[in-house]
Parts: sequence; structure tokens; C-alpha cells
Amino acid sequence: MTDFTGKYEEYKNIINNNIECYIKKSEPVTLYNPLKYILSGGGKRIRPVLLMFCCEASGGNPTKAIDAAIAVEILHNFTLIHDDIMDNAVTRRGKETIHKKWDLNIAILAGDNMVGLAYESLLKTKSDRIKEILAEFTSGIIEVCEGQSYDKEFENSTGADPIKEKNIGIEDYFMMIEKKTSKLLTVSAVIGGLIGNANEVRIQALKAYSRNLGLAFQILDDLLDITADKKKFGKKTGGDLIEGKKTFLLLKALETIDKQADREILTGIIKNKGIQKDFNETITKVKKIYEEHGILNFARKEIEKYTALAEEQLSVFDISDGGLLKWYSQMLLGRGY
Amino acid sequence: MTDFTGKYEEYKNIINNNIECYIKKSEPVTLYNPLKYILSGGGKRIRPVLLMFCCEASGGNPTKAIDAAIAVEILHNFTLIHDDIMDNAVTRRGKETIHKKWDLNIAILAGDNMVGLAYESLLKTKSDRIKEILAEFTSGIIEVCEGQSYDKEFENSTGADPIKEKNIGIEDYFMMIEKKTSKLLTVSAVIGGLIGNANEVRIQALKAYSRNLGLAFQILDDLLDITADKKKFGKKTGGDLIEGKKTFLLLKALETIDKQADREILTGIIKNKGIQKDFNETITKVKKIYEEHGILNFARKEIEKYTALAEEQLSVFDISDGGLLKWYSQMLLGRGY
Repeated sequence: MTDFTGKYEEYKNIINNNIECYIKKSEPVTLYNPLKYILSGGGKRIRPVLLMFCCEASGGNPTKAIDAAIAVEILHNFTLIHDDIMDNAVTRRGKETIHKKWDLNIAILAGDNMVGLAYESLLKTKSDRIKEILAEFTSGIIEVCEGQSYDKEFENSTGADPIKEKNIGIEDYFMMIEKKTSKLLTVSAVIGGLIGNANEVRIQALKAYSRNLGLAFQILDDLLDITADKKKFGKKTGGDLIEGKKTFLLLKALETIDKQADREILTGIIKNKGIQKDFNETITKVKKIYEEHGILNFARKEIEKYTALAEEQLSVFDISDGGLLKWYSQMLLGRGY
Repeated sequence: MTDFTGKYEEYKNIINNNIECYIKKSEPVTLYNPLKYILSGGGKRIRPVLLMFCCEASGGNPTKAIDAAIAVEILHNFTLIHDDIMDNAVTRRGKETIHKKWDLNIAILAGDNMVGLAYESLLKTKSDRIKEILAEFTSGIIEVCEGQSYDKEFENSTGADPIKEKNIGIEDYFMMIEKKTSKLLTVSAVIGGLIGNANEVRIQALKAYSRNLGLAFQILDDLLDITADKKKFGKKTGGDLIEGKKTFLLLKALETIDKQADREILTGIIKNKGIQKDFNETITKVKKIYEEHGILNFARKEIEKYTALAEEQLSVFDISDGGLLKWYSQMLLGRGY
């Protein structure tokens, strides 16, 4: 497979350079300082690069997609700021989160303003299909909010009240992550395709490609929470368990494990909305349960399945264009699981 | 002057009926219940009606402006939800605020989602000038966030640190309220004009009309905070003083009053970021100071001045069309000051 690392880095640098120049204002300082702080904080820029790649794969000029690429990156960062508030997160990419470094009000406003700035950048895009582009982008905001809302609902669902609360299962999980994780990838891929003036068959292929990529990406994220080297992953091991997140692993384990002692540990986490004490001990126990019952391997297979489903879609592209997107999916999902 | 009360009520009812139907989804419930709660909570609907009036005054069919009118009303309600969080407000229009009735996370997400829903409604608008419409709407979000950010900066500015903090004056106040209050009226007026396909002269007139209307409206709001009958106004008397808001009255008083004893009371409020004890006593004292030094009368004259400046702009419209907008300004600012 052709290696497109150089192209990825090139486009990432274009995004980094342009996003820094994009925010020209400096006042009010309590609004623009935090905003510049998060936008210059790096990150892999996976969404804007995907957008430019999909534009290119569709026969378009990727430089015409830069404004839209910046728009999806700004939108993504808006979701990070507000999600960090909701998750009480203290750090992000090794730096203090905005609500921690400044305060709650500033974090809310910085996020809000970024939605406006994202549309402002998107509206600079020159395309005959601007209405479709705007509709896709807008549906992205709505679905990401719905996804985050389900995620918080699921976190708070202890199954203690069977009338008010249904048990959250794998099906609910997929519905949630399709909105919370896949949707912004789909927005990026589809907008890239629209700017490249892709035909309907290819737009649908990009939609399915990015959707499946997002599902694989989220299951991988859930897996890495428990298996990854803390330093490499940049997050606390077992963070999802501590917060009581209904991850793929936890839901799959509850669906398949019969052994009473193991079930009690898992349902305990759900009832307590996370881990409240003996953190490391509990995380180690859960990891052992996952290993013993083949949950980790099952997750790995699921990642492979959705990656394959994503890549299948690329047959409607020319070989070299499809190759670029195949390289992207391998890059995105090659985080050593 | 022709009475357009009937037309106002008719359009308000159209907005109320359409906005209730607009939100068709019900899940996730923690997202859509609060959203429906605030959107069905009434209010004067001054922005969407202004949008429809400006469309009509520009020769357009106001029914073609309904989707855009709903968009500005949803956007306005988004700002209310997030402002209420930042102001720690407990009630709004006599009902509990969303972050109080539900919680912080739900209020943040409901607001965020409403920005998406607002664009979704706006994008339904059939107009050749849709790109201008979207650009105006987008600049609205950005400026409203900037205005709110300045407002909070000003509230937190005690003048105690002359290097870091400049003294907030009347000029800063006008810059802030132009963004925080005028801008959404301007967005409404200009979008109405664009849908009505107004020429550039009329668009500029609508911009200046709504800008001045907004300034008069905010000064009136500041005035009513101290003079209004609590029941009629629906807010606590002196609420702005308690919160330490840099209102027109407070800034004008500080600019004009020399009497040391009076100054000390006023600067005390600024230093303490509001009133911390002896609430009623202090509010009564401040009201007396305002009265004695003619601050309240000065505010009334300013309201008249900006109302007149707004109405002057209407000369570029036909008499009956201008009459509709003149009636609107009188209605908006006729809150018995």
C-alpha cells in the first residue's frame, strides 16, 4: 500500500497554519484567549485531513476545501470544550482544560462562539453545493449533541429503576456512538466529497466509509482505555470504568458473561455510576474478567469488521483515490491494539 | 398612527404554533424535553415578529420568512439558556431556568443543540440571497457571544487594579450592548429585508433602525430594573445592582456625579461586584441618587433619542411600510418608562 504519511503531514500543517491565522480578533480577551489556546493545542486533525482527502479522492482540489476543513476542526474543538465541562475533565492533550484554567462561564462562551466561527469559515467555501454542505454540517451539530446527551443518559442509568430506566445494551451503544463519534467523521467525509463534486454513489460510499470508520474508532478507543500504555495513550487507564461509561467492553461483557462473581463486579460499576474506591484493584479485576471471557479479542474483531466494512465502500473510487482513503483508515485504526 | 396590534398578535401566534411543531423529536428526552420547555414558554417573540415585519415592509411575503423567524427565536432562546447559567439565574419568565430544573450539563447541551436546530430552520428558507442570510445569522452568534463576554468582563472589573483593568465607561457600555442586545434585532431586521429582497439602501436602513432600537431597548431595560413595578416587569427590582452590572444608569452616574458621599455608594457597588448585604436599603439609596442627579431623566431622554434615530431611518420605505415599523418601535419601547 502506498504510504501517504507525507501527504497527511502536509495537510495537517496546512490546517495548523491556517487555523492559527483564522482567529484574528483578540478582544474580548476572555473570549479569544481560551479559544486560541485550544485551537493551537495540536491534536491529530483527523477530521479536517479526512475532509481534504475525500475532496481529493473525489477529483476535487483539496486547497478549495481548506475553509471547510477548518470549520470541522473548530466544530470538533467546540465539542471538546463543552464535553470537558460535562465530564469534569481536568486535562486535555496534556494541558489544562478551559473551564479549569479559566472558569465555567468562559468555557461555555468560548465553545458557543466557536460554533459561529465554524460556520463563518464554512461559508467561505466556494461550491455550487453550498446548501448541501451547510445542511450536512448542521445535522452534525444536532447529532453530536444528541450523541453526547445519550452518552450522559447512559452513564446515569444504573438499571435500578426498571420502569424509568431501561437496561443499556450494545444496540443503544451503537446508536449513541454513531451520533457521538461517527457523525463528525461523516460530516467531514461528505463535505469533502461535495466540494470535490462527487456523484451520489460516491457521496453514499463516503458516508458509509466514514460511519464504519467512526464505529471502529470508538470501539478502539474503548479498548485502549483498558489495554493501552498510559504514556502512549495520554489518558488514565480505566478512565471509562471510573466514570461509569457504558463502553463496548462493559456492555459486551454484561451480555455474554454468566459467571455470578464476575457479573457482580461489572453490575457494581453500573450501580455505583463508576468506580468510587479501590480504583486500581477494581480496574485490574475488570481487565482480567475481560481477558478471561474473550471480550478484548471480541472487541479487536469488531474493530477489524468495521474497518473492513469501511474499506469495502472504496471500490467505487479509482484505485489510487481509494488507496488514499484506505491508507487513512489503516492509519486511523492502527493504534496498536 | 395605524394600530398594528392585531398583526403583531397574528404573527406571534404563527411563531408560537410553528415553533411547537418544529421540534418533532422527543429523544434523547434529557435533550428535547428542556428544549421544548423553553421554546413553549412564551415570551414576546419580538425578534421573529420584527423579521416578518421587515420582510413585509420590504415588499416580501412574510409567510416566506417563517422558517427564518423561527431560527432567530430558537437562537435567542439558546442565548437565554446559557446566559442564565452564567448569571446563576433561578427563574425566567416566571418558570425555573433549565440548569435549575434539570442540571448544568443538560442546560449546556440543550443550548448547543438549539444552535444546530436554528440553522436547520434557517436553511429551509427559499431565497436567492441565502448566503447573505446565513452570513448575517452567523455574525449574530459571534457578536452575541462577544457581547456576553464583555458584559461578564465588565461585571468582574472592579477598577481595583488600574494596570490590568481599565475603568468601564459609557463608550464601552455602548460597544457591549450593540453586540449583546442590538445585534440579534439587526440579524432579524436584515434577514427579513433580505427575504423581502430589499435593495441595499433599505437593508442599510433596517440595519441602522434595528441597531438604534436595540440601544434604546437596553437602556430602557436598565431603567426598568430600578423604576419598574416588580410584578409588571417580572424581575426583581435592582437585580442589575445586586449583580454589579455596569448599566447605563450606573456608568452615567459615575461619569456625572461629584458629591463624595454619593460616589462612595456607587463605587462601593463596583468594588464589591454588586450588592452583598442590606439589599433593599442600598437599592433605595441608589435610586434616590439617580433621581436627585437627574440620571433617570437622562436615561429617558437617551431612549427617546435612539428611538427617534431608529425611526428616522424609515423614510426610505413607503409610508404604510414605514408605519408598520414605526408602530413596532413604539410598541417595543412603550413599556411605561
